[in-house]
Amino acid sequence: MRYHKIPDETVRRLPIYLRGLMVSADQGCEHISSQLLADSVGVDAWQIRKDLSYFGDFGTPGVGYNIERLARGIKKTLRLDAIRRAALVGVGDLGSALLAYPGFRMYGLDIVAAFDVDRQKIGAVVNGIEIEDTARIDTLKQREISLAIVAVPREAAQITVDSLVAAGVKGILNFAPCKLVAPRRIKVITLDIAMELARLPYYMPRAEQVAET
Amino acid sequence: MRYHKIPDETVRRLPIYLRGLMVSADQGCEHISSQLLADSVGVDAWQIRKDLSYFGDFGTPGVGYNIERLARGIKKTLRLDAIRRAALVGVGDLGSALLAYPGFRMYGLDIVAAFDVDRQKIGAVVNGIEIEDTARIDTLKQREISLAIVAVPREAAQITVDSLVAAGVKGILNFAPCKLVAPRRIKVITLDIAMELARLPYYMPRAEQVAET
Repeated sequence: MRYHKIPDETVRRLPIYLRGLMVSADQGCEHISSQLLADSVGVDAWQIRKDLSYFGDFGTPGVGYNIERLARGIKKTLRLDAIRRAALVGVGDLGSALLAYPGFRMYGLDIVAAFDVDRQKIGAVVNGIEIEDTARIDTLKQREISLAIVAVPREAAQITVDSLVAAGVKGILNFAPCKLVAPRRIKVITLDIAMELARLPYYMPRAEQVAET
Repeated sequence: MRYHKIPDETVRRLPIYLRGLMVSADQGCEHISSQLLADSVGVDAWQIRKDLSYFGDFGTPGVGYNIERLARGIKKTLRLDAIRRAALVGVGDLGSALLAYPGFRMYGLDIVAAFDVDRQKIGAVVNGIEIEDTARIDTLKQREISLAIVAVPREAAQITVDSLVAAGVKGILNFAPCKLVAPRRIKVITLDIAMELARLPYYMPRAEQVAET
């Protein structure tokens, strides 16, 4: 993998700051202090200042950060300053929810293709996207689609990733609860929803347990 | 908020280790080195050793970690050593996907109730769970349900959280793309799917951009 100077944890938080800045901009604000931004996004102010120091300081003492300039800086750093075309593989319940979800556009991400193996789904149109046969994943390169979302069952996940990599996809967001093998140049982010829920009990009082296993 | 001695980032990684250990146990292994565990879960070995040092060292030089003991230790630390009953609010596409998802049981999490405002959905049974009117959220305390998953539209998210808090819920996994206000004693984890996808372009080559905004 090539060298990235910004730590992964900072890259994880930058979109959170971006969302907070967009909300403030919608409310008509031009500047925001790191403390106000911290309050609105739920991250400590020192952490925000440290994260932003990695790619330049946009703050002015007493005035705070210029919202538009900071948002532009974060977008540029995250390379969200261009529209990216993405494909979805697996149009089950989760896949359908993702197709219907308006939030991706906020980050310059545009789902323009969807694939499934189910003959009953192929040809159907969901949210303006016609579902294609998974066999057609090999057309992604010529269609300039370099991002993919994998929402297939666990058993089908690795073979799906293999075909996406062969089709020139460079980044994959995987919802199947397993680790996938891909060349190092391909960035795979796995989002295991059960695992997120599994973090909650740690923060809950012991007395809430109702049954010992 | 009460004091937690393990950093949030470590709490975030522990379930990943647990899943890796479970896979190894399924394959019949009794011990695993931090390097092998690192390879299987995609986290650096030094990071694993550091994370595990927070709650006791289970490794033996030359032998590695005893898988069963380590898994039990992680489960105990994360408080996953008891079955937790959870409620789902919002049975749309995403909510239905969550109800159908078998992965929660692996972490001792059991979705036992589902709520929606849609009269057409109330009374229907999805994966063995009868969908109830959201007005009945106030019964959660007497049903000993202390965890909730929020999969409602953004506009309904805060009012949903307010009613869950009033019903005694202690931990919330929120899929609505917004920051929610809750008392400090309630742990809210927001999972913004678009935001996860927004991290991918950073790791992709500049040449993959197809249009400037």
